[in-house]
Amino acid sequence: MGVEYDGNGFCGWQRQLGQASVQQSLEEALSRLAGTAIPVTVAGRTDTGVHALCQVVHFDAPVQRSAESWLRATNTYLPDGVAVRWAQPVSAHFHARFSATARRYRYVILNRREKSALWRHHTAWVYSPLAIEPMQVAADLLLGTHDFSAFRASSCQANSPVRSLHRLTVSQRGDLISIDAEANGFLHHMVRNLAGVLIAIGRGDQSPQWAAEVLASRDRCQAGVTAPPGGLYFVAPRYPDEFALPVDAVDPGFLTGT
Amino acid sequence: MGVEYDGNGFCGWQRQLGQASVQQSLEEALSRLAGTAIPVTVAGRTDTGVHALCQVVHFDAPVQRSAESWLRATNTYLPDGVAVRWAQPVSAHFHARFSATARRYRYVILNRREKSALWRHHTAWVYSPLAIEPMQVAADLLLGTHDFSAFRASSCQANSPVRSLHRLTVSQRGDLISIDAEANGFLHHMVRNLAGVLIAIGRGDQSPQWAAEVLASRDRCQAGVTAPPGGLYFVAPRYPDEFALPVDAVDPGFLTGT
Repeated sequence: MGVEYDGNGFCGWQRQLGQASVQQSLEEALSRLAGTAIPVTVAGRTDTGVHALCQVVHFDAPVQRSAESWLRATNTYLPDGVAVRWAQPVSAHFHARFSATARRYRYVILNRREKSALWRHHTAWVYSPLAIEPMQVAADLLLGTHDFSAFRASSCQANSPVRSLHRLTVSQRGDLISIDAEANGFLHHMVRNLAGVLIAIGRGDQSPQWAAEVLASRDRCQAGVTAPPGGLYFVAPRYPDEFALPVDAVDPGFLTGT
Repeated sequence: MGVEYDGNGFCGWQRQLGQASVQQSLEEALSRLAGTAIPVTVAGRTDTGVHALCQVVHFDAPVQRSAESWLRATNTYLPDGVAVRWAQPVSAHFHARFSATARRYRYVILNRREKSALWRHHTAWVYSPLAIEPMQVAADLLLGTHDFSAFRASSCQANSPVRSLHRLTVSQRGDLISIDAEANGFLHHMVRNLAGVLIAIGRGDQSPQWAAEVLASRDRCQAGVTAPPGGLYFVAPRYPDEFALPVDAVDPGFLTGT
């Protein structure tokens, strides 16, 4: 299933006792439909306040239903902040997390002096003017396969800090600035820490070269502030073509038009 | 002042007993700042659930403060769903409503089979596929100066049903369709009724020529469904150049990128 959610109102993807999580909402909806518990496996967990355009989950269906029926019935039981976009049968060796070859994220910044009433829950507000050219110069220095320890939260449980960053681009329309990131995988808080470094450079507090220095340090203390979660969108994972899942077409051009 | 607001959580612009209105929020913030009641006059009232990118108000300032100070202090006292974008002194003969030569609106439709979790409060959801070409053909038939009685709510208090519709364009990016409307003024529910007619045509329920028939009938019963308020944005009014207000640059390209 491809699942869209609004990070506001959830403690993030993963179940936590006494809090509303996206995982719990989805598993409860599926279970009501099937009459039995259905645990789901997710492509990439997200933190409190982080949104998703096309999160992907897989599960073993205990009852026979059409894809259309799974889609419609699950949406009926979901709260307003979660919506299934598609459902599709997959072969038994598909795994939402381990089959994913890459993940795409977008970080959206509202860059103007005054706060926004309309997009306060869906963008990160930066009031100092940002110059996107030095941000892009810095972004280019981070591409490739590196030890990203400097961009990793202390809570990160990944075995290795090495990731391959395929894409990191900065675009602008009016007062909205987007950072698009794609990697084979991301460490905990990695996108928000990358955004924090690029924002400091865009503001002129640091030179673009500083991004390379932070990366080389492998020291989390160098990277400074973790950008807030409300600007972060999990766009979609990528999978090998054999699974024929409609994830590559997901367009993150909402809000910014870029 | 130019004011942005999120229609969710408000009973609309105008004060209503026992309900939260944008007008009350703004007047209370201004009054706290000035230490005395400050009534404001608005360019165009909006209904429950309708948003604004740049609503314009004027008021007589009972205390001397810089424009910057009005802006910052008012934002401090406003609830999260309302934000002042700019403040500027104007000559005594400026009137937010009567000086306006035109008003711009945008109606945003999410056109896909499944509901949206992220944009449920900021778009109108239409699940039947819409064809924008016939919608634009129909829109062109409505341009000009006409008696728009067929698009007017029964509650409308305007003296005359005649308005000059300068612009009515339909654009699309992915599953988001925008309708941009500009007129010297709009009757009550006029944009939502125009949207309702264009949606029926986009769905193929009616031919483009039907829009001209509805217009000619001057009969509200012909136009069918009023489209829901959550997709409607008051973009900005227009004023003569002499007032030098930053309203023409307001970009409604959020969400749709068009």
